[in-house]
Amino acid sequence: MAFDFSPLFPAGLPPPAVRWSGAPRFNFTGGNNDPDELPLEGLMAAAQSVLAREGRTLAHYGLRSGPQGYLRLREFLAGKLKRDAGIGCNADDILIVSGSLQALDLVNGALLARGDTVIVEQDNYQGTLTRLQRLGVTAVGIPLDRGGMRMDALEAALAQLKSRNVRPKFIYTIPTVQNPTGTILDEGRRATLLKLADAYGVPIFEDDCYSDLIWSGERPRSLHAMSKAENVIHIGSFSKSIAPALRVGFIVAPWAMMSRMLALKTDAGSGALEQMVLAEYCAPHFTEHVPELRRGLRKKLETLMESLAEQFGTAAEFDDPKGGIFLWVKLPDNVDTLKLYQSALAAGVAINPGPEWSTDKAHSISRMRLCFASPSHAEIREGIAVLADICRKEFGVPERSANVERGAGA
Amino acid sequence: MAFDFSPLFPAGLPPPAVRWSGAPRFNFTGGNNDPDELPLEGLMAAAQSVLAREGRTLAHYGLRSGPQGYLRLREFLAGKLKRDAGIGCNADDILIVSGSLQALDLVNGALLARGDTVIVEQDNYQGTLTRLQRLGVTAVGIPLDRGGMRMDALEAALAQLKSRNVRPKFIYTIPTVQNPTGTILDEGRRATLLKLADAYGVPIFEDDCYSDLIWSGERPRSLHAMSKAENVIHIGSFSKSIAPALRVGFIVAPWAMMSRMLALKTDAGSGALEQMVLAEYCAPHFTEHVPELRRGLRKKLETLMESLAEQFGTAAEFDDPKGGIFLWVKLPDNVDTLKLYQSALAAGVAINPGPEWSTDKAHSISRMRLCFASPSHAEIREGIAVLADICRKEFGVPERSANVERGAGA
Repeated sequence: MAFDFSPLFPAGLPPPAVRWSGAPRFNFTGGNNDPDELPLEGLMAAAQSVLAREGRTLAHYGLRSGPQGYLRLREFLAGKLKRDAGIGCNADDILIVSGSLQALDLVNGALLARGDTVIVEQDNYQGTLTRLQRLGVTAVGIPLDRGGMRMDALEAALAQLKSRNVRPKFIYTIPTVQNPTGTILDEGRRATLLKLADAYGVPIFEDDCYSDLIWSGERPRSLHAMSKAENVIHIGSFSKSIAPALRVGFIVAPWAMMSRMLALKTDAGSGALEQMVLAEYCAPHFTEHVPELRRGLRKKLETLMESLAEQFGTAAEFDDPKGGIFLWVKLPDNVDTLKLYQSALAAGVAINPGPEWSTDKAHSISRMRLCFASPSHAEIREGIAVLADICRKEFGVPERSANVERGAGA
Repeated sequence: MAFDFSPLFPAGLPPPAVRWSGAPRFNFTGGNNDPDELPLEGLMAAAQSVLAREGRTLAHYGLRSGPQGYLRLREFLAGKLKRDAGIGCNADDILIVSGSLQALDLVNGALLARGDTVIVEQDNYQGTLTRLQRLGVTAVGIPLDRGGMRMDALEAALAQLKSRNVRPKFIYTIPTVQNPTGTILDEGRRATLLKLADAYGVPIFEDDCYSDLIWSGERPRSLHAMSKAENVIHIGSFSKSIAPALRVGFIVAPWAMMSRMLALKTDAGSGALEQMVLAEYCAPHFTEHVPELRRGLRKKLETLMESLAEQFGTAAEFDDPKGGIFLWVKLPDNVDTLKLYQSALAAGVAINPGPEWSTDKAHSISRMRLCFASPSHAEIREGIAVLADICRKEFGVPERSANVERGAGA
């Protein structure tokens, strides 16, 4: 007779996990990367050289670099952030964390209490939305257009909250290749966002983890770089640029915030070997690796957009994003992507249904996020064909004729 | 003018961290390991072979092994736990975590709410005590003797709590090389502990992270192995046996608990490279590495005990522990180790003051924990000499004569 743990569980626990049953055959979810673009030889060489030189420091928590993480990695990041994002910071302003998910947890932990309010982009990263929900924090979603977060809507929301004496704890934004919309906030809107945040006394939480993946290689300056008020917390990650299974992200923040997050980071440091290998690899190779990765991703995106056009015709609407690893797709209004998600998964196709990625369920119910970095070109084509079949059976769209027409023209 | 974050911080945040100012010259704190005992060549070879064989799986969160962690590491652990601890489990019963600190967080997260009560050994791991305090959980400390947790005291505490209608959420114990006392609970007491836990309907949280480090190589069966009630959550780590900067620990638990902890583990997996390298190294080499490590640690302990005898004479009382990386030392009653800690740190000697490692401040005020794995033999000798000087200046003990006598005899 197994011990019954259930009377001991506190209120508010998330539902139990279900047993993992393997990866779906066609996986259009998750920030997985293209295995072929992983710089494996470079990482292997980096592992050898860094371990040969200083591997014995692994006998110490924190590698003798202190609680903010491996010094060489922070030094690489300080240079990279200056060069790419315009951020003037040094190694002491950077905290290495176990993936940007730990960054979310630390920023949330230092600022949020149950009942608080934050501002987010309406369509948003699921991991952020579920965290806020678990914390009992109200997420006010700001609609986006093709230029990203709408500043008129942000201003209205800030004013409306102020009229109710609510001071949001932060404005969370993914301004550069927004997740899931893929939009990029231009410098004009960034200036407006900073001005509004400053005027309302609200910090900005800038999640920058896709900014290396803009096809053109040209990104706007980060909000952190443009801010004069020192009110921007900037986070990033190596998951998208090198490898997601390496759990290494970072936070750039003023010491007033950093010191609070450090006090909450009671994990005895993030994985040191991963930090060492990344620093050793990235310092000489990052700037040559990333453009190659981008070319590969762009090709995958083209395959995905072509497959959608072929299989869904006009039933799948989307913009051609300027970078990233996902496509935000609008299906006809009668499609419920939560239902589509279930049927598709049963057929081996995993998608992200819109309502899990938005504060506005009505707006997002007929939308879905498709990640394209990980499946092969063939898997993308086949998976989208299977998805179209299921969608047709369940919702009558795409119509068969549209499909055939597009197919004939291809 | 820097943005003022302070009005945004929620109540109950821990105090801000202070800037790291480097490692102390003589560091007798922290679970650091002996750099000379780190199996560096083996880890380097493991990194090459595992990356060459399956490195491209790093492009996927979870390495295609699912959310419980790298399958080969879980398979190694299932075999090791069977062989060493008597635990009959398979890979599906094991969750790989980012160091045993994450194990503490997940078990606590799944079971504890503010106001709850747990039972712990009175002298205890600081990281456990501070976590419970932050969670607002009452830790009832059970005194230890040379045989570990006293079963009469445990029984009395359980009865007393029951009379107040308090059902403790768990009994947290480090039964094998207890931290900081170094005691080992024999199988008789383990049977009693299991019987009491069963009778009172309280799960056992068994923290087993030092059990590889018993000098004789012979350990009692784990509580998990001896339990018939399936009420034991067992955790362990590679920090002490391989390298602490590799943040890899594990949990063995019934699915009723595991499924709840998995739902709380929202970190997209623990560091995959570290898991891969550990699995590749440990499967063939763990059983030859650990005895070597133990021999080195035992020598360090002997140097420490000799140095204490020489420098402190009878003013430092301690038992010769049967394993581990720390010594729990009783100083004369007039010594306040919180004060000693401050003065010693100023002189470059870091110790763990007793009150941070105990639920009983009066009992522990004149005690300290000294970790001996990381400093060299010379650093141990010199550091203890410096510590004795400071202790003498501050508290008049050890007396000079004792010191000189011992020194002359050496």
